[in-house]
Amino acid sequence: DTPTKSVERDDVKRCVDETIKRAREAQPLIRDSSVLWSGPIQGSVHQDLLKRCATEMASMDFAIHPIGSVVPLLVQYKFAPHVEIIRAAKEILPANRPVHLFGAGHPMFFAFAVALGVDLFDSAAYALYAKDKRYFTQYGTKHFDELTYLPCSCPVCSSHTIGEFNEQKLAAHNLYVTFEEIRVIKQAIKDKTLFELLEQRAHAHPEVFKAMQAFVKETPFINKYDPITKPHMFYLSDFSKHRTEFARVKKRVSCVKSKKFDAGTFGKIPIDIFECYPFAQTEDGSDDKKAKARNDFAKIRDVSLYWFGVNIFKETDRIRVSPKTHKIREVFDKGKVVASFRANDFMILLHEGSKRLFEKKYDGRVVVQDDVSEFIREGKSVFAKHVLKCGKNIVPGQQVLVVNKSGDLLASGEAMLNAKEMNDFDRGVAVNVRWSNK
Amino acid sequence: DTPTKSVERDDVKRCVDETIKRAREAQPLIRDSSVLWSGPIQGSVHQDLLKRCATEMASMDFAIHPIGSVVPLLVQYKFAPHVEIIRAAKEILPANRPVHLFGAGHPMFFAFAVALGVDLFDSAAYALYAKDKRYFTQYGTKHFDELTYLPCSCPVCSSHTIGEFNEQKLAAHNLYVTFEEIRVIKQAIKDKTLFELLEQRAHAHPEVFKAMQAFVKETPFINKYDPITKPHMFYLSDFSKHRTEFARVKKRVSCVKSKKFDAGTFGKIPIDIFECYPFAQTEDGSDDKKAKARNDFAKIRDVSLYWFGVNIFKETDRIRVSPKTHKIREVFDKGKVVASFRANDFMILLHEGSKRLFEKKYDGRVVVQDDVSEFIREGKSVFAKHVLKCGKNIVPGQQVLVVNKSGDLLASGEAMLNAKEMNDFDRGVAVNVRWSNK
Repeated sequence: DTPTKSVERDDVKRCVDETIKRAREAQPLIRDSSVLWSGPIQGSVHQDLLKRCATEMASMDFAIHPIGSVVPLLVQYKFAPHVEIIRAAKEILPANRPVHLFGAGHPMFFAFAVALGVDLFDSAAYALYAKDKRYFTQYGTKHFDELTYLPCSCPVCSSHTIGEFNEQKLAAHNLYVTFEEIRVIKQAIKDKTLFELLEQRAHAHPEVFKAMQAFVKETPFINKYDPITKPHMFYLSDFSKHRTEFARVKKRVSCVKSKKFDAGTFGKIPIDIFECYPFAQTEDGSDDKKAKARNDFAKIRDVSLYWFGVNIFKETDRIRVSPKTHKIREVFDKGKVVASFRANDFMILLHEGSKRLFEKKYDGRVVVQDDVSEFIREGKSVFAKHVLKCGKNIVPGQQVLVVNKSGDLLASGEAMLNAKEMNDFDRGVAVNVRWSNK
Repeated sequence: DTPTKSVERDDVKRCVDETIKRAREAQPLIRDSSVLWSGPIQGSVHQDLLKRCATEMASMDFAIHPIGSVVPLLVQYKFAPHVEIIRAAKEILPANRPVHLFGAGHPMFFAFAVALGVDLFDSAAYALYAKDKRYFTQYGTKHFDELTYLPCSCPVCSSHTIGEFNEQKLAAHNLYVTFEEIRVIKQAIKDKTLFELLEQRAHAHPEVFKAMQAFVKETPFINKYDPITKPHMFYLSDFSKHRTEFARVKKRVSCVKSKKFDAGTFGKIPIDIFECYPFAQTEDGSDDKKAKARNDFAKIRDVSLYWFGVNIFKETDRIRVSPKTHKIREVFDKGKVVASFRANDFMILLHEGSKRLFEKKYDGRVVVQDDVSEFIREGKSVFAKHVLKCGKNIVPGQQVLVVNKSGDLLASGEAMLNAKEMNDFDRGVAVNVRWSNK
């Protein structure tokens, strides 16, 4: 490719044109190659050029798409413009091709890049910074000569004094910090606390703060990927109000017509849905709200309206309450489990109730190839490669119905991917089936 | 002492009474002892009891004062009430006695305790948490079983897999994190970025956020200790507006009558003082303000009014400007240096101008014993033990005048301690003398 050396429109346009031209020329040569060829996305701050480049590259045979960062900006910690660059490219690129961010070497921006969908980094920054006597921390860089203490526990810092440091040791320290941040991010993804990590990083450096300001403008994009529930939610700053939870709560609560009470952070909500994520799971530093809810039909109806937009329960259903916690555990109809309620987020886990939801208007549907119908009916997982189409708003953790091309209900379960990923991925589980229509 | 086991007023009062009684009884036994005896401060959330205990203990012969924390609150991460407890005790206790915080074992509160004046910690938390399979991070605790990755670079985490961990290794990790935080805090004190560290920690956990809310209420107390200038200031959140810089700027700018322009974060300020801390040194994520200032008498007058509240310059003084940076470097009067200007914060460093300031109303004065007068006149440092009294608003970094009991000007220089410390300390430098009146 032709990397962009400046952000001047004419220069960038020339780079984009040349990169696309060379990519086209290369296509016959790289097709059927076993090498993972990269199709770089140039265009940087010029959205129209970037989108054209991404669209062209997406249409060609490439395994990986590196996004060209603006290195002169990154060197000055100007991370904010990269938020829009990455989001714009990711929106166009197929979800099954890993995205690599060129030149992003300082760990302080990694979490933002990952949150926007970057999969790979490469950089010599750890060594280049070391040459310049600069010492990485997860929240910035310190000039080594200004250190009186080593604010780090890595093996290099734990076993050497400041006086014993040299360029090689500094580079090794920088690399430890880099990999630590990668593990911190991976664990945060696992814990579903990536937004909390971003908020924490944002309040450590003004340029990261600006990146966060840019990031929260991308909530509609993040909303397509963010898991439907999380173990908890911390309300940590004004940025928190841009979390996907707020837009989602607003939309879902509008489906529930019952009387509302003030639940703090999220404003007025119907009392009966308080146990559902994110209400009871939010820690905002205020005292815990206690909501007195009933364990009756009105409650399960409201919870169903909240999660599905429709009610799947009947007044004649029997509710089983935990004798210990007095929380609703399951709902039965004539001895069969209609649905159960997950304790930590009050998500409705569908059983026979899948059939009821199937009869209603619910866009959380995944259509699979007919030839796997029988496997799914046996309770096997749905793989992404078997997905023909799916509801366009599906997000991970959502309860979905699995149907075949003829429209028969095969199973229900939990989405492991969002809609775009289900459509684009060639491998991996799309739906973890919990109930199947044997 | 009798530690407080509850926060019930009657229980606490009994503990305070008993602790004071025993301390009094012990006095004849511990006086002249070479052991560093501790005088514990009980009272916790009951401010009147706490203050009585601190006042009594301060009046007795003790070397160290441990402050009784409320362990049941700390265990639940309820840090916020401890902010007021520590501040109230510190206000009463002599500055020369180290303060120890009992039972504060989780590193996430250390930076707050240190910012309030705590010198020592002891805790078995690293081991107790390990027994409970809890893994320290600087921003909270994770249950070890929930970890898929080790988000840390300490020698234990760098050289073992999750599967190889046991209680002992977990305790060692927790200890590494604990000591790392101590070094992070020490370096932040050195860099004068402790407030930035608190802001960072505050946005990582809701309970730390609450501690920060409590901390910013103590700005009048912090204002007595906070250095007068810092290498830079990051404006990172709404908490930033409670920094001492804001109260100080408001007070100092009121002394300067010139036309004002909008300098962003700090509102309207006279253009000629823009180079002074904290204006040009503040990074708030907005674009750099460029202020066109003149290099003339009006400017040095305004800068003098800003730093000292009075003007020490004359229209006949000669200004020397750096040929390279075009910044004012020195001001001369008849070949003698009146004062120089420090490049990074535009602090006025007094030379012959000390005599002019001495003639004006300026409360940054330190009175020393007559028997050290001659040493000081020779340019030697002023030691705290020689300070008889000093201006009650002196803070570290302030330019102060050194006088003897008879009121003769001996020298000028930079305060290394605040007023209370100068009065209480028995050792260490109180003023770094730059100019002396030979």
